[in-house]
Amino acid sequence: MRRVTVELAGHPYDIHIGAGLLDRLGEFVRPLRPSRLLIATDTRVGPLYAARARAALEGLAPVAVFELAGGETGKDLHAAEAVLEALFALNADRKSVLVALGGGVVGDVAGFAAAIFMRGIRFVQVPTTLLAQVDSSVGGKTGVNHPRGKNLIGAFHQPQAVVADTDTLRTLPARELSAGLAEVLKHGLLADAAYFEQTVRDLPRLRACDEQALTAAIARSCEIKAAIVARDERESGERALLNLGHTFGHAIEALTGFDRWLHGEAVGCGLCLAADLSRRLGLLEAAAVARIEAAVAAAGLPNRIEGLSRAAAVESMRGDKKAEAGEIRFIVLERIGRAIQRTVPSDALQATLAAGGYR
Amino acid sequence: MRRVTVELAGHPYDIHIGAGLLDRLGEFVRPLRPSRLLIATDTRVGPLYAARARAALEGLAPVAVFELAGGETGKDLHAAEAVLEALFALNADRKSVLVALGGGVVGDVAGFAAAIFMRGIRFVQVPTTLLAQVDSSVGGKTGVNHPRGKNLIGAFHQPQAVVADTDTLRTLPARELSAGLAEVLKHGLLADAAYFEQTVRDLPRLRACDEQALTAAIARSCEIKAAIVARDERESGERALLNLGHTFGHAIEALTGFDRWLHGEAVGCGLCLAADLSRRLGLLEAAAVARIEAAVAAAGLPNRIEGLSRAAAVESMRGDKKAEAGEIRFIVLERIGRAIQRTVPSDALQATLAAGGYR
Repeated sequence: MRRVTVELAGHPYDIHIGAGLLDRLGEFVRPLRPSRLLIATDTRVGPLYAARARAALEGLAPVAVFELAGGETGKDLHAAEAVLEALFALNADRKSVLVALGGGVVGDVAGFAAAIFMRGIRFVQVPTTLLAQVDSSVGGKTGVNHPRGKNLIGAFHQPQAVVADTDTLRTLPARELSAGLAEVLKHGLLADAAYFEQTVRDLPRLRACDEQALTAAIARSCEIKAAIVARDERESGERALLNLGHTFGHAIEALTGFDRWLHGEAVGCGLCLAADLSRRLGLLEAAAVARIEAAVAAAGLPNRIEGLSRAAAVESMRGDKKAEAGEIRFIVLERIGRAIQRTVPSDALQATLAAGGYR
Repeated sequence: MRRVTVELAGHPYDIHIGAGLLDRLGEFVRPLRPSRLLIATDTRVGPLYAARARAALEGLAPVAVFELAGGETGKDLHAAEAVLEALFALNADRKSVLVALGGGVVGDVAGFAAAIFMRGIRFVQVPTTLLAQVDSSVGGKTGVNHPRGKNLIGAFHQPQAVVADTDTLRTLPARELSAGLAEVLKHGLLADAAYFEQTVRDLPRLRACDEQALTAAIARSCEIKAAIVARDERESGERALLNLGHTFGHAIEALTGFDRWLHGEAVGCGLCLAADLSRRLGLLEAAAVARIEAAVAAAGLPNRIEGLSRAAAVESMRGDKKAEAGEIRFIVLERIGRAIQRTVPSDALQATLAAGGYR
């Protein structure tokens, strides 16, 4: 087992990573002395793991389980409202604790419900996808989608603890495991070249759910993200670097209706576009771009998505919530292992999109 | 004009108090360099003041006005959602600023929308009722009601500034002015005996909208509340003292369907019940209880509400969100000018309710 501490002013918390942790959930929740416990999960993860989570928590407080309809399409304000109603039905109070058991959607929706129930109750994340273990369970971002875009309604709310059981990844479809690897690659690319190279070497073991490789990668990714979040909790500066590949990725998701590509797949392709853009700005060598494209492919991710509209992509990126008054800022690479924020000239962006197969 | 600074770690802000400030709103909003401005108001205050607020902001950024259906009954999650939709319609982004123009309901709903729009945008409070000027615009509590109770869904979100124009109180019904005086009396009772005595002397001038008396009272009330909030932003301890009279008051509102008595009226009566309870606990002299009851009456507030159900009141107070695992804690007075938190024996509570006219 590995433990990573996220050092936030006033409310540090631990991420516990390893095999078999789901059955030990009670150890991590007991110190919170909850008055009531609600396990929020979804219709996919609930049948697999909710009974074990409940058994691990039995005796600490009255426990209830609530299942959200799974998937990104159900991630809206009404889903958060349904979690709130489940808390009311349980007679939850300010000392109650919400346990978010599932992937990023469950964590985002349930975390948001915890953020606004009685102006904020405590919650514990139990991420069951690689993407959630390395990314969405670290940093305190919670929220739901709006027809205008993803995560446009939400709150910053830090969990009390994160419990990442690597065994739960064994039931994850291969495609979703690969989607999580996009974020693992991203963390190396933006902050740690040696970690990027290690990940590239470990890709076969990671894709085969090797426990040691997974635990090491999740821990290092969480360390990188946690360090950045600790320095910039409210995303005023450095935290934006974590959006490497995401401005492109969000546009891919928006242009394909959020159902064709997984978030991690869109980010994988977005990393390649960000690398190409970095080269056109004179920052990155062509060899590094090729190395990134090969790594994305080796992770089982698309490094190129053909046929999307260039104009629609630019329009979508302008509407992204990181845009300020219409100007698009990108995260680009100075080299593998170092990212910076940059406002990009239109012709370089257009050239990257054209070379990337956009029409 | 008076200015009170609320000293919060990381985000201090000023409360500006005086006559004629609505037309000077631009001075306080300009430093925020907003990309867009949404004035959220309601159907009662909008027709009176929205045009002047808009005129004062013109030229700083594109401005839109959105009117909520007024009143506590419309203070629900859907009202907050309507404000979010108005922000989306305006193409608001993270640099946009929401201006909450109105009473406590507008401030609570609009402040909550600002808290969750793109995980939090800046907002400025322009309270137009005495209650909002002395109470709900200070402290960062935002939220909406749920069928289970008041303010059960919400967030802590501090404004960038509060602009309290005493002139707007001239259009306030006398009954609502009195409701605001309940909080003014409360602040003296819990923290400053001399201020309580001054308020009692000033009641005729305050009820006649004398500008100097109002500015002085609003400033002192804001100072008292701001000092407490600054020491306890998340309501873990001392801030609970501000609930003096409120546990009783909330139960009165709940038992009468939230439409018979104004919040301030219920609090006025709640102050008398809290005083009686304090006497039964051996803390407060009978003469002080009588003095408090006389002051509440002189403010134009009910110091006694007959005929409510004792059992239902206790049940309602148990369900209040300050209750922890069913135990009721009350704020009681050691003397005029000093409040403490106390778990109360059932027989003292029952005696207070019986003496207060409960059945």
